[in-house]
Amino acid sequence: MSNNRQITLVSHAKGNPKEENFSMVETPVPEPGQGEFLIRNLYFSLEPAIRGWLEGKANYFEPIPLNGVVRGPSVGRVIKSNNVDFVEGDIVFGLNRWEDYSICNSDTILLEKLHPKEGLPLSYYIGPLGGSGTTAYVGLHEIGYIKEGQTVVMSAAAGATGSIGGQIAKLRGCKVIGIVGSDEKADLIVNEFGFDAAVNYNTSKDLAADIRALAPEGVDVYYDNVGGPILNAMLLTMKMQGRIVCCGMIADYNRTENPNPITNLWEVVARQLTMQGFLLFTYHDKVPAAQDQLAEWIDQGKIKVMEHVTKGIANTPRAFGELMSGATKGKALVELDLPEQT
Amino acid sequence: MSNNRQITLVSHAKGNPKEENFSMVETPVPEPGQGEFLIRNLYFSLEPAIRGWLEGKANYFEPIPLNGVVRGPSVGRVIKSNNVDFVEGDIVFGLNRWEDYSICNSDTILLEKLHPKEGLPLSYYIGPLGGSGTTAYVGLHEIGYIKEGQTVVMSAAAGATGSIGGQIAKLRGCKVIGIVGSDEKADLIVNEFGFDAAVNYNTSKDLAADIRALAPEGVDVYYDNVGGPILNAMLLTMKMQGRIVCCGMIADYNRTENPNPITNLWEVVARQLTMQGFLLFTYHDKVPAAQDQLAEWIDQGKIKVMEHVTKGIANTPRAFGELMSGATKGKALVELDLPEQT
Repeated sequence: MSNNRQITLVSHAKGNPKEENFSMVETPVPEPGQGEFLIRNLYFSLEPAIRGWLEGKANYFEPIPLNGVVRGPSVGRVIKSNNVDFVEGDIVFGLNRWEDYSICNSDTILLEKLHPKEGLPLSYYIGPLGGSGTTAYVGLHEIGYIKEGQTVVMSAAAGATGSIGGQIAKLRGCKVIGIVGSDEKADLIVNEFGFDAAVNYNTSKDLAADIRALAPEGVDVYYDNVGGPILNAMLLTMKMQGRIVCCGMIADYNRTENPNPITNLWEVVARQLTMQGFLLFTYHDKVPAAQDQLAEWIDQGKIKVMEHVTKGIANTPRAFGELMSGATKGKALVELDLPEQT
Repeated sequence: MSNNRQITLVSHAKGNPKEENFSMVETPVPEPGQGEFLIRNLYFSLEPAIRGWLEGKANYFEPIPLNGVVRGPSVGRVIKSNNVDFVEGDIVFGLNRWEDYSICNSDTILLEKLHPKEGLPLSYYIGPLGGSGTTAYVGLHEIGYIKEGQTVVMSAAAGATGSIGGQIAKLRGCKVIGIVGSDEKADLIVNEFGFDAAVNYNTSKDLAADIRALAPEGVDVYYDNVGGPILNAMLLTMKMQGRIVCCGMIADYNRTENPNPITNLWEVVARQLTMQGFLLFTYHDKVPAAQDQLAEWIDQGKIKVMEHVTKGIANTPRAFGELMSGATKGKALVELDLPEQT
């Protein structure tokens, strides 16, 4: 067994994270203690939420300390176990770290033993069947209460959560409009993912007017992945008693000292809106059913999956920077190199 | 019968409304048409919401046109009727206008035939038993879902809605903290209205820190009447899955071109908050029960009422400016002069 390569945080990023904010170190592969088990990580899930943990202050998790190994969700295979519930060969998902080998125990956050469905790639369990897809599913149903015939707007619509969420809403009989940052992404979500329409916020002169033109009766549910100016514009498009699902605010993640100002909150009163934030781990009891439904739809070809795969643990920092700059489409992930098998 | 004195809007206010933004005109008392009835207004309810209608653009109601009579809630007595449901002598509440006599029909917004409880002043039906009190009651129960043992924070706590809302939350077994703009109001809400604590936002150096010191486990329900910097600070004090009842945003009503920026909305995601706006007319079916409960509590001395009474229709513009500048305590109202009875 080779050493354990680990990606550490060496400095706080100003703006978009850069490769020099990270370092790669090698340490001995750890031995699992009592109740613990060791996994060989196979895939890292790159998620905007990780950006928040790279700062010096807590958000909903403690920050990653300088020179600490970066925290992030992964899928791995159990290779040694002192835990009766996990045996060698089990495939698990969990909030682990950017490293070849991770120590887990029964309290590992988001820990889940996977039973991969035949015919579906294992990597799907960090994307459409993992946090990205199940977050979209839970958010649309448990927070947005989407109903057939409603108009749903999805931001970051070409992303891991947005692309799955838009397709879920279509399958539920909604009219779905996506907001994206390029014409290429606009084409993608309409022609590949089946959205009814797309708006490119980078070329729109008046985002609220463009959305209103596509949804003249107003928007029932806005699924917000971005916050910032797009949220501010969307507040002007909502139907009376509409719902805003607050899933993420990526527009602010690189603006850690200077969040975008929101000036249209009066609309929350005037339109009697509900804005509700949620984190998937609070709804963990809803995840298995979401996963089953999504797997069925993917298996039937009703939901299309796009992945942005980066190979090699050493390329993780670069790949994360690409995600945070909006350069990726679909699910951004790292496929780890497994030199011990070559 | 004398002429009908009417207060009209002659110019849009810059900042706080001034007397010169209004004029008083006299017109003949109108005759009720088919299905209509004529009321003699007795009390005007002065409410911050009226400020929004004095601008040139719609919020949830159409704006009041220049030289139009100002729209506002009133209590009046029916003096002529061509409507079978309303007879001379009936006392009614409705969204009427700032004038001696108003024409109503069955579609008058918020129209309600009052059955004043013996021993309770009629003016209470525009304050604690009217929109101000029932809004607080409905907001706390239907939007805030307050429960015994929770910590509730109320802004504009010495105002018509805040002072009643705080007392309702106390009667429901909550710990109640009020935010006010002067030490005099802080004394009032603690010593007269029975709040557990008060914070003066004008002298507080760090409002979020002061609230956290009083509510170290976080705030369950924030009842927001003000928006702006106070809302921005309160977002930093909420308990996980806390609720913000968005009732009004008076901090922005005089800043019509330049609303306060909110920069802490990330907390909606990180703390999984629900922010929900509401307007009383959507919950009109909840009003009678709210009114009954409030009347009982007031009758029993369990809720104390404070009124800021201005006499004479001609003084309505000045009284409204006082309300909007924060100079009043309790329910601001105009008691109309009735020269025809003298």
